Amino acid sequence: MNTAPAVAAVDWGTTRLRAWLIDASGKVLAERRGDDGLISAREKGFAGVLEGHLAAMGAAPSLPVIICGMAGSRQGWLEAPYVDVPAPIGAILAGAARVPAQGRDIRIVPGLAQRLADAPDVMRGEETQLAGAGLPAGGRHLVCMPGTHSKWVVVEDGAVAGFGTWPTGELFSVLAEHSILRHSLGEHPAAVTPDNVFFRQWCERALGEGGDVTSKLFAIRAAGLLQGLGAAEAAACLSGLLIGGEIASARRRYGAGNAPVVLVASGALGALYATALDVAGLAVRIVDADEAVRAGLVEAARENGMIGEKA
Amino acid sequence: MNTAPAVAAVDWGTTRLRAWLIDASGKVLAERRGDDGLISAREKGFAGVLEGHLAAMGAAPSLPVIICGMAGSRQGWLEAPYVDVPAPIGAILAGAARVPAQGRDIRIVPGLAQRLADAPDVMRGEETQLAGAGLPAGGRHLVCMPGTHSKWVVVEDGAVAGFGTWPTGELFSVLAEHSILRHSLGEHPAAVTPDNVFFRQWCERALGEGGDVTSKLFAIRAAGLLQGLGAAEAAACLSGLLIGGEIASARRRYGAGNAPVVLVASGALGALYATALDVAGLAVRIVDADEAVRAGLVEAARENGMIGEKA
Repeated sequence: MNTAPAVAAVDWGTTRLRAWLIDASGKVLAERRGDDGLISAREKGFAGVLEGHLAAMGAAPSLPVIICGMAGSRQGWLEAPYVDVPAPIGAILAGAARVPAQGRDIRIVPGLAQRLADAPDVMRGEETQLAGAGLPAGGRHLVCMPGTHSKWVVVEDGAVAGFGTWPTGELFSVLAEHSILRHSLGEHPAAVTPDNVFFRQWCERALGEGGDVTSKLFAIRAAGLLQGLGAAEAAACLSGLLIGGEIASARRRYGAGNAPVVLVASGALGALYATALDVAGLAVRIVDADEAVRAGLVEAARENGMIGEKA
Repeated sequence: MNTAPAVAAVDWGTTRLRAWLIDASGKVLAERRGDDGLISAREKGFAGVLEGHLAAMGAAPSLPVIICGMAGSRQGWLEAPYVDVPAPIGAILAGAARVPAQGRDIRIVPGLAQRLADAPDVMRGEETQLAGAGLPAGGRHLVCMPGTHSKWVVVEDGAVAGFGTWPTGELFSVLAEHSILRHSLGEHPAAVTPDNVFFRQWCERALGEGGDVTSKLFAIRAAGLLQGLGAAEAAACLSGLLIGGEIASARRRYGAGNAPVVLVASGALGALYATALDVAGLAVRIVDADEAVRAGLVEAARENGMIGEKA
């Protein structure tokens, strides 16, 4: 059995970092979470932040490190140039960029670029989740990865055919904090749960509008004035409207297909999307996002020859 | 000829106030503009702010005053209760609420409420613009009143049949200032002009999506990263996307009809909407918003018996 660390895997985003020590079989031996994402690591220095986390987990000085996420952006540690889609997932991972002049082997998985004139798009980090999502090797699969900037990806026979971004999480935040809806949602919007009837109702309304959400935003304010809608209810309405709108829009662009939608998500957000996809009448296969990114990082370490082939 | 003031007309919004002295024929004799909208008038006192502007224009102490806008909201001077639609425009104006215990006759035009379970909506101020827009007495007319919260109104045989709100101006502001697009648009977004090719192109794209704009927001950011889109161009893209999306959405809800869309707007915003409506293939009749609100206020003064009937 493997019990010695074979690689350190790091998901290094804009505001957060997660790191794991993983053995050659893919088993997690240690874990760290920190708020030293790209923004604070730019100040402190990426190498120092990384070595601090590795030392805290007792990693040997020679342990290789595989990284995904915004650390590979132009504003990050080292720019890992985008791979253009369409591209096979294995080939994306294999193109990890090596950080020069470090005491250990440190590589960063590239992001993806979709260079379409009328639908340019980019991602960093989600390509690694995708690699670890356990997709079948063949067939067409529609993958939904919700978040601040939700990604929907079409995978065909193991290659990324195309993708799109819906800034649903960000829209919720900026509208709740900075638009007239702040009067409706109050200072500290309540957490929305999937069993909330307003969430489901506004999700249905948005699904009926093919992704048009702007026509219904002000109705949340008006429902407060005319129908006594409360703050917690208003938060559920906005969440249902935006998530339902995202699903309607993505379905319109990509079609639903025959295979279930693969939902790569965790926690409360995953539960909201699972409900919304169900309201939309779409079959869903749920993959835990934390497990997917770890599995994808291990796969990337293999593709780059940092650890041995799977037994 | 009339040369003596017959009424003072005041368009009193959230952040601004405009006041005119008008003779019985509707001719403007004096004008004032101030930043003492509802927000600052709540601090200073509505009566004092109004009397200050009237004194500066040399209005007699007995001159009646007709007001429209947010001054009539619950947070304003005196709540002028909403009139429920459908309602004839004349009847809306005739229901002006009298401010008690003032030295002069001061009345506030009511706003409109649309008490539909699935499309609640409200307006204050636009009903007066509508009354002054010179709509034909008969037939069905679709009216577009762009702004922070754009209103689209269906008028049938001189009555408001229904309306909707698209928070297009507010979306532009909050996205430009608080979303990831702030990196694309820069700190001081450039003014967008209707001849900008990016404005027209993104307008067309939005019109092709039936009001779905959220799927294209992130593409503005990605176009900066992948295609070298500049800050002024990004502002034009966002403006075209949001205005085109509003028009697509409103057309989907209300249909275009046979009569031209009546665009009640002024200045640069009016020019952008006129272009966007043209890109959408819709015939347009343009009505100046400043003139419309003045004409509507004079009409309201007549409907409430504050000045004589039109000769």
